[in-house]
Amino acid sequence: MADEKGLTKRADDFAAWYNELVLRAELADYSPVRGSMVIRPYGYGIWELMQRGLDDRFKATGHQNAYFPLLIPQSYLEREKQHIAGFAPEVAVVTHAGGKELEEPLVIRPTSETIIYAMFAKWVQSYRDLPILMNQWANVVRWELRTRLFLRTSEFLWQEGHTAHATEAEAEEEARRMLGVYREFMETEMAMPPLTGEKTESERFAGAVRTYACEALMQDNRGLQAGTSHNLGQNFSRQFEFRFQTEAGGEEYAWNTSWGVSTRLVGALVMTHGDDAGLVLPPALAPIQVVVVPIYRTEDERALVLEKAGTVANVLRQERVRVHIDDRDTLKPGPKFYEWERKGVPVRVEIGPRDVAAQKLTVVFRRDIIPEVPRKESMDEAVALMTIPRRLPEYQRALLEAAIARREEHSHRGVTEYGAFRDLIEAAAGFVYTGWCGSAECEAKVKEETKATIRLIPLEEFRSSDRPERCIACGSGAAEEVVWARAY
Amino acid sequence: MADEKGLTKRADDFAAWYNELVLRAELADYSPVRGSMVIRPYGYGIWELMQRGLDDRFKATGHQNAYFPLLIPQSYLEREKQHIAGFAPEVAVVTHAGGKELEEPLVIRPTSETIIYAMFAKWVQSYRDLPILMNQWANVVRWELRTRLFLRTSEFLWQEGHTAHATEAEAEEEARRMLGVYREFMETEMAMPPLTGEKTESERFAGAVRTYACEALMQDNRGLQAGTSHNLGQNFSRQFEFRFQTEAGGEEYAWNTSWGVSTRLVGALVMTHGDDAGLVLPPALAPIQVVVVPIYRTEDERALVLEKAGTVANVLRQERVRVHIDDRDTLKPGPKFYEWERKGVPVRVEIGPRDVAAQKLTVVFRRDIIPEVPRKESMDEAVALMTIPRRLPEYQRALLEAAIARREEHSHRGVTEYGAFRDLIEAAAGFVYTGWCGSAECEAKVKEETKATIRLIPLEEFRSSDRPERCIACGSGAAEEVVWARAY
Repeated sequence: MADEKGLTKRADDFAAWYNELVLRAELADYSPVRGSMVIRPYGYGIWELMQRGLDDRFKATGHQNAYFPLLIPQSYLEREKQHIAGFAPEVAVVTHAGGKELEEPLVIRPTSETIIYAMFAKWVQSYRDLPILMNQWANVVRWELRTRLFLRTSEFLWQEGHTAHATEAEAEEEARRMLGVYREFMETEMAMPPLTGEKTESERFAGAVRTYACEALMQDNRGLQAGTSHNLGQNFSRQFEFRFQTEAGGEEYAWNTSWGVSTRLVGALVMTHGDDAGLVLPPALAPIQVVVVPIYRTEDERALVLEKAGTVANVLRQERVRVHIDDRDTLKPGPKFYEWERKGVPVRVEIGPRDVAAQKLTVVFRRDIIPEVPRKESMDEAVALMTIPRRLPEYQRALLEAAIARREEHSHRGVTEYGAFRDLIEAAAGFVYTGWCGSAECEAKVKEETKATIRLIPLEEFRSSDRPERCIACGSGAAEEVVWARAY
Repeated sequence: MADEKGLTKRADDFAAWYNELVLRAELADYSPVRGSMVIRPYGYGIWELMQRGLDDRFKATGHQNAYFPLLIPQSYLEREKQHIAGFAPEVAVVTHAGGKELEEPLVIRPTSETIIYAMFAKWVQSYRDLPILMNQWANVVRWELRTRLFLRTSEFLWQEGHTAHATEAEAEEEARRMLGVYREFMETEMAMPPLTGEKTESERFAGAVRTYACEALMQDNRGLQAGTSHNLGQNFSRQFEFRFQTEAGGEEYAWNTSWGVSTRLVGALVMTHGDDAGLVLPPALAPIQVVVVPIYRTEDERALVLEKAGTVANVLRQERVRVHIDDRDTLKPGPKFYEWERKGVPVRVEIGPRDVAAQKLTVVFRRDIIPEVPRKESMDEAVALMTIPRRLPEYQRALLEAAIARREEHSHRGVTEYGAFRDLIEAAAGFVYTGWCGSAECEAKVKEETKATIRLIPLEEFRSSDRPERCIACGSGAAEEVVWARAY
């Protein structure tokens, strides 16, 4: 498995680097089914940690998990006109089952609004039954023509939150709350600082009144939509007769939201922190936070060093550090170092016979990123064991700070001249902030000419202090400030 | 939601009781898709606890999670001849996707041996890459004609373990180890004591060399297959060219196992412990272990009682008890009691103004099952808070002991006469142990005449001390002792 051949460099071919890294860090592999991938244990371990982090946050904000059917009657999908228009081109259809042709074809869920709100309608009679705050962890299928590991696959894993409220204001509050939950998760756990804001009409979820999104900047300066949260208004509740009795005794359609993130986040993590040697994992999402590599020649040395490795691992585990001892006899230390570097393990501890004799440990960070802490250091064992658990959160913070600095370095505000704007986009300069008149024509024109799209109308805190006055495309008065980028 | 109308009694119509309970305890609901159900939050909460309990055990025995595609090329399923014969009648087939007819139809996984061993073949070169110990949490689809909530649905959630080994002995050991893990989980967490044993050839998994199973006795004395573990030999590795270089330098096909349990376990839990008032949950799998119901008339009383409820909940939560305070203003205490009884919460704590004044709590168990502990008891608050966390494991044990006693009471050994055997089966008397000559003809004849099947050839510890000498059907020498029952 150890393969010492280096990866393509990011600067040479970012896309090739990404694919090689995903395959060689054993995060995922291609499957025999077009567009579907296999998530290997190391990649799935990262996803499990993401799930735990998200699920805890969903529960802390009052949501409960449930599970709805994979297969949805085609007629359900068709009830909400914009919804079917958005998803029809990419659904997979079951026409036969149990040896017979079905009377009505079933669609593999591309998302579950239709089936879920049909059930909510059955469960809710009055305002007393609201709000409903649910989430589902599930697989979905969207038949994509051009796929990339984690970023765009025909089947992917995700969570989809679905809620129902008695008032429009509550639904809007919920949609924004969950956007905030996503942002906080991405910053705290992924060390990835997204912008947050609203999508323009052309980029809205099919069937939503408003779509909010987290947009992160990858190292190649392309944007990546990392999570979305939708205020669905009453669009779906009208189609599924989802009504409730109000406190005043009247009847009203319920107000819905939905919100989701997917295994795409694993790809985002790779492209946010990875380097030319491979993956770089923030400790919060590292299945292995510390790998201990024993170094020995003789059997006696082996016993000595492995005993010490066991002690070191136990002490660290008591501090809730996830430790792995790489005791494989089939590989020498060098290839092991390469492998764990490629897999992005935050800390490596090397223990040889001389270290044991001197009560020392060699501690190596995956990346030279904490100010004033050397990448590699020989430390007294007792000091190392106290220091490592404390440095993991420092390393986590340092990764976030580096990512914020990179995002800001590649954010361009106050761009008012179309030629300059175009040059920045052509140069893959990152996020470009401009004014926009609000017309779909200007949006489409810029997209056609530059391949950049409006990623977001940023929320207040991301807006420029000097708000742009003119639309970058037509020069008329700006209705909004927007963020442009080429994107995944 | 509170509905004080009683359930059908188990003795009157067990099947009706089961369906009503599942719906009215809000474990699950019917969906608009034939044969698929919706798992509601309360039912899913039980499943999440089961997942946690199982996943911890899988990881403790060295397994890692991964994820493989939902859609499998039809040709893959067809490679293993017995496998396709077993599953062909119940697969759902995707013929169209992305607006086009597919060149090769894709099957929604009914189980994932084929796709997984195809991937293993790609990853394994030598004996050094073995064993592979993987598990997947996933949904599967098997098109069933007659479905029942949790017990038999067209789509269900499960885990499927898949392993590959260098030797036949290791694979056999693994298959038996996981059978033991299932049994221990069912006893410890579900308080459900299954028999374990081997399936006869006619009941074997399609493609397996040997199938082991956990078989539990439900309260209507029907057997329920609760988990299976298969030694697959080299059957799949031959079809998928899954070879490895042996230590001696030769080449051999790998040896595989697979094993799974599903959301069916939720149904098994209901039918093991439920009573005429509703669900009875063992504390280990109760999403709510203690429900606190405040009792008040005035606003002042409400404030007083809710404050106390908060204190009680906090103390219990520090002892890692899962507590819910039912502070709904829309329901009186009586309907709340009914609802939580129906939902099987192990302990109810009632707090009224007089309790607060006297520093007392009223503690009510869902069922009168711990020897020498009354079902309802007024206790000093301090005593109650120390006692409840200690009584939860006692209650758990008492439920297991009651289930073991019931299983033994309804197990009939030493049955040698076919008429007596038939009467026991007709009387729904439970597990009937007999001799069996080993012929498929005798097995089929008994099944046709009595609707009973051989549930298991029991493992050593479940065998009768006096081993039966004659086959119950033909009277010739018995090759095995077997356990018969009518089953789900």
